Amino acid sequence: MDEFDSIARLFRPLADSPEALGLMDDVALLPVRVGWDLVVTADAMVEGVHFLTDDPPGLVARKLLRVNLSDLAAKAAEPYGYLLTVAWSPSWDEVKRAAFARGLGEDQARYGLKLFGGDTVSTPGPMTASVTMLGWVETGKMVRRSGAREGDLILVSGTIGDGYLGLKAAQGELDLPAANLEYLAGRYRLPEPRVQLREALQRHASAAADVSDGLLADAGHIGEASGLGVSIELERIPLSNAARLVLRQAQDEAGGASDDHRRKPHPEPVEGRGFRADPLLRLATGGDDYDIVCTASPTEVDALIAAANAVGIPMTVIGRMVEGQGVRVTFQGQAVAVESLGWRHG
Amino acid sequence: MDEFDSIARLFRPLADSPEALGLMDDVALLPVRVGWDLVVTADAMVEGVHFLTDDPPGLVARKLLRVNLSDLAAKAAEPYGYLLTVAWSPSWDEVKRAAFARGLGEDQARYGLKLFGGDTVSTPGPMTASVTMLGWVETGKMVRRSGAREGDLILVSGTIGDGYLGLKAAQGELDLPAANLEYLAGRYRLPEPRVQLREALQRHASAAADVSDGLLADAGHIGEASGLGVSIELERIPLSNAARLVLRQAQDEAGGASDDHRRKPHPEPVEGRGFRADPLLRLATGGDDYDIVCTASPTEVDALIAAANAVGIPMTVIGRMVEGQGVRVTFQGQAVAVESLGWRHG
Repeated sequence: MDEFDSIARLFRPLADSPEALGLMDDVALLPVRVGWDLVVTADAMVEGVHFLTDDPPGLVARKLLRVNLSDLAAKAAEPYGYLLTVAWSPSWDEVKRAAFARGLGEDQARYGLKLFGGDTVSTPGPMTASVTMLGWVETGKMVRRSGAREGDLILVSGTIGDGYLGLKAAQGELDLPAANLEYLAGRYRLPEPRVQLREALQRHASAAADVSDGLLADAGHIGEASGLGVSIELERIPLSNAARLVLRQAQDEAGGASDDHRRKPHPEPVEGRGFRADPLLRLATGGDDYDIVCTASPTEVDALIAAANAVGIPMTVIGRMVEGQGVRVTFQGQAVAVESLGWRHG
Repeated sequence: MDEFDSIARLFRPLADSPEALGLMDDVALLPVRVGWDLVVTADAMVEGVHFLTDDPPGLVARKLLRVNLSDLAAKAAEPYGYLLTVAWSPSWDEVKRAAFARGLGEDQARYGLKLFGGDTVSTPGPMTASVTMLGWVETGKMVRRSGAREGDLILVSGTIGDGYLGLKAAQGELDLPAANLEYLAGRYRLPEPRVQLREALQRHASAAADVSDGLLADAGHIGEASGLGVSIELERIPLSNAARLVLRQAQDEAGGASDDHRRKPHPEPVEGRGFRADPLLRLATGGDDYDIVCTASPTEVDALIAAANAVGIPMTVIGRMVEGQGVRVTFQGQAVAVESLGWRHG
């Protein structure tokens, strides 16, 4: 009966909403909201694949909620609650499980989420957890990937590449001042889903996706869903100070004589940002940023940026929806060859 | 990009409902039904823990759907659709994955289910899959575990113990005629969620749960939720022909001189069924039956049985809700000591 005790002790305190029925019924009962639709999404994470074995369990829990919240944020949906299934591995003792549950509780409070139920089992393999997240959106107000029109501008919130560099920082592969390492590792371990963009996106965006697979891949998903091509200007991609520092280091080390120099059409430092196409391309395909890439008609762009800024989120124009299909990348006006638009964990 | 291709090939054909948005948005959009509530539940399965490595992948998929459907059936909810997350292990090649997806498709058709979305990842560990199942119930019509009243009779659908014996049959531990082995292994591998009981339960039951952890444990959940004790008459538990055969074999082998004979108050063959308390107790605590245990007031019992029979499902009275708490088991009128009411996988 250990499992019952464990559920009661760890999860029942998190499931105190009327919907959860005290976790007594193995189901939750969700009353509908007239005039609203439910938005549902699910994501899974595997230890050693999507998070590191020595990542703090509380952060793992919060990241799991947040990657799902990021999907809701991209649809301009209001977070509601979630179901959780966990397969505990033997190395996840009571201390780690309790820390995991505390992490859930923290982000439930932060994002106004309810735990509706789920299942806990054991596995001889790596710890594996899955969340199904539910949100509400007023009927007709969901922002889809398919809504972009030719000529719409493409924008991205926040900064790009920090998730990719954050994994390297967490793995000790970067040599940076402590504050920068901490910032980057934090972006990897604990993304900030852009739930505050809900109103800005609902009012002004024609399409949106979250940046999980890689900026180019996710912009490409909008293109595919909208039946259009995507044109991205690599030098416009917004970078954090920490990311700029990493890129500057790499260029200093490489000097002017790297292999890239001979292979690539644009080995010279970028005038604007001073970076080369190659490292920028890695950041634009690295994934795990959990910022929002979206489109807006030229007449809505200023209002979208203003509405995002009003909730403290920068928003940068990085390209345009074009006729055709696929993702075209330019760097200072020249086409850049792209082998892979992004990746998907696992 | 393999993962994208795999999702497109395996799962997109299963996600052709308007709600799934062609799996293009990483979310599904569920329009609400005025006057109805949503019922949601989630269950996970791990290879080697909840199913055998050589179980056919299609059956694994169907069992995963069905254990979730069983939770809905116990609430008298109408199946709607599901989200699926899968962590593929390296041994699950394209052939196995395709067979898994075909199994999903089969039971989607059988139960009128829609695939709303989900996530597929890779794991170095055992294959692990999780389903969140959604159903509809008219507002106020959900059957809860907490609705039982003192004096209500306790009933169970179908037969009990076949899931427990089915695992043994699937593992080659039973020596029975092929037809019986096949029947039992089938009950383990492919339970039949009692979705047809929806109307009978809604109209006549005061509380219900599905039998997944063990009949005694799940009846106990009703007692706990209702603030009552549960009294079960062991000799009334309905057994399949195959289960009777197994029990008869065991008694023939043991003869009259088993350890049980000296320890237990009732070693004599039961008059009615001819079985001893001990093996019956094992079946009543074995779990994995996915039948329904429910309660009904004495005035509703006949109508409940008739309504169940009308949809082809036997329903047997096995006990009564009593004052107090906990689960009391009797055998031919005498109390039987019970160490564990059931178990939970993993």
